[in-house]
Amino acid sequence: MAFGWAARDTSGLLSPFSFSRRVTGEKDVTFKVLYCGICHCDLHMIKNDWGYSIYTIVPGHEIVRAVIEVGSKVEKFKVRVRVHVGSIVESCHSCDNCASEIHIYCPKFIPTQGTQDYDGATTHGSYSAIMVANEHFVIPIPDDLLVDASAPLLYAGIIVYSPLRYYGLDKLGMHVGVVGPSGLGHVAVKFANAMGVKVTVISNSLNKKKEAIDHLGVDSFFVSSNQDEIKAAMSKMDGIIDIVSIPYPILPLIGLSRTNEKLLLVGCLEKPLELPVFTLLLGRDIIVVNCIYIMGGGTNRTQDMFHIKGQHNSNTLMNLLSKAHVRYCFVIDIGNHINLHHLINLLLIIRI
Amino acid sequence: MAFGWAARDTSGLLSPFSFSRRVTGEKDVTFKVLYCGICHCDLHMIKNDWGYSIYTIVPGHEIVRAVIEVGSKVEKFKVRVRVHVGSIVESCHSCDNCASEIHIYCPKFIPTQGTQDYDGATTHGSYSAIMVANEHFVIPIPDDLLVDASAPLLYAGIIVYSPLRYYGLDKLGMHVGVVGPSGLGHVAVKFANAMGVKVTVISNSLNKKKEAIDHLGVDSFFVSSNQDEIKAAMSKMDGIIDIVSIPYPILPLIGLSRTNEKLLLVGCLEKPLELPVFTLLLGRDIIVVNCIYIMGGGTNRTQDMFHIKGQHNSNTLMNLLSKAHVRYCFVIDIGNHINLHHLINLLLIIRI
Repeated sequence: MAFGWAARDTSGLLSPFSFSRRVTGEKDVTFKVLYCGICHCDLHMIKNDWGYSIYTIVPGHEIVRAVIEVGSKVEKFKVRVRVHVGSIVESCHSCDNCASEIHIYCPKFIPTQGTQDYDGATTHGSYSAIMVANEHFVIPIPDDLLVDASAPLLYAGIIVYSPLRYYGLDKLGMHVGVVGPSGLGHVAVKFANAMGVKVTVISNSLNKKKEAIDHLGVDSFFVSSNQDEIKAAMSKMDGIIDIVSIPYPILPLIGLSRTNEKLLLVGCLEKPLELPVFTLLLGRDIIVVNCIYIMGGGTNRTQDMFHIKGQHNSNTLMNLLSKAHVRYCFVIDIGNHINLHHLINLLLIIRI
Repeated sequence: MAFGWAARDTSGLLSPFSFSRRVTGEKDVTFKVLYCGICHCDLHMIKNDWGYSIYTIVPGHEIVRAVIEVGSKVEKFKVRVRVHVGSIVESCHSCDNCASEIHIYCPKFIPTQGTQDYDGATTHGSYSAIMVANEHFVIPIPDDLLVDASAPLLYAGIIVYSPLRYYGLDKLGMHVGVVGPSGLGHVAVKFANAMGVKVTVISNSLNKKKEAIDHLGVDSFFVSSNQDEIKAAMSKMDGIIDIVSIPYPILPLIGLSRTNEKLLLVGCLEKPLELPVFTLLLGRDIIVVNCIYIMGGGTNRTQDMFHIKGQHNSNTLMNLLSKAHVRYCFVIDIGNHINLHHLINLLLIIRI
């Protein structure tokens, strides 16, 4: 039996929930959940905003865990090792995408929370004491990583790290725009800094400027409605990573990049974005790109991310990031507090 | 003095027009126009569909010409050489894009027809007897190229050839989808065939199937509304080049490509296309790409195109294409018929 916090309907209200996890299979790893980040996706899932949630839902996918049991054919893990599982827990293992280690694009992948697993059971996330998953989707966490505050980075990190790497916006001396200095945005800034990439943050509010310059270390900042600043910045960036999750006119942003460069759309826009094809055709060559999402970089790239170094010191960037991250994200200390009402109070706070 | 056919207003009706071309400048080349293709863009320009036409307009930009005079500092051309000028006739020569030979993305480029040149004069296209242009935008035509029927290919060719090359959809054994078996579409099919790339044509009408298979040599064909055929073709293509110029749902098309592959949008969509970002994020990694337009590949790539060989023989593909092209495009024999009413009659026919 597992104990967790679950939503019963689209109200998304969480309440205590006792349920069964499957018995540890021969390729499975069973974990005690230590820490779990709170991601906006959890809120979308418990309210069925995306239309595929199956109730009862135990949310949670930014997870740090300690292995407590391993199946007979598990090769990569031993008991007590600290590990990470992201947003998927199973895939078909036979398609081209699985072969390329980009299981998130497997047509039959199973999300960590709120959908139906191959055995018919509903998958439950990690706002709960224990979990079970196939070892293929389990990633070891380096011993020197601070696991508490790092939990959100395990998900938010790869969302921005993977596209910066995949689309080549990771070269020393490049200049990248980050649109939306949110939780994801600040992680993107930190990774870009670590890669030696100059960063301009573009926001819809001047209020965020001081924080961006002082705490995130961005090189410049301007407000998207300021025509003079947009004009002065035209055609100077090597690419833009865009975290905004509401529809908006992309044309001014596109002009900020050099010809042939990329706008990476990472935000979960629920409504379609208008793509002004004709203007783009006439104006310049533009690539509008959807992000390689979640673990799209593959488990290898996720592990690679854990080890990226800060530009000016030898600590892992993930540790540096995690220290800064606490001002932007919430982490639940599941290991010590799964039974406390603290959890639900916290969730209620961030939904307001 | 030059004689041509011009539109006076947004009715787009053409009538005889006598006007001045500038005197041949020291870097200019003056031409006698031999043949001119009729492009749909001409119709948009004479009706001011794109909002930047300046009347009186002499349209025409798919041009084969013979040099009749060269300026004192012209280095590349001599009198009597056959040349091509595409859709732009001037640019700033000082920006990054000009330095990269992609003048079409120069913020100050001057289109061949219906806009204001640096000297204040309105540019006039080649539905006229003579023209003048800076040698930088003039491309020599190989001696063995059949110039009459090839005229439209000088423009339509590079629109599809350049993105196939630039985005790497030109490798032997690849599989590319061509959406919209129109004039541009059939040129794309021919180039892909010549590159050894397998082609599937996707159309909104089954009526075009026999022609596509018999005359274009496509490997397969299906109708975009046929769900069974779309399902069977899912995730099999290395990329898609999309020539359609009216808005439509792109999601089914995107699913046809393998993960990480490209949808190249080449059609002049005047209304924005809906980009269903959220579904794309969840489903697969997608790159939605605007085409490198017109001479975006640069003059070097345009010249390269002239020399591409058909896969199974030594004739230049451009010659093979031009023979097939007559069933899809109109060419005006300006050299012999500029004064005839034949020209305006032809234009009236194709506007119906």
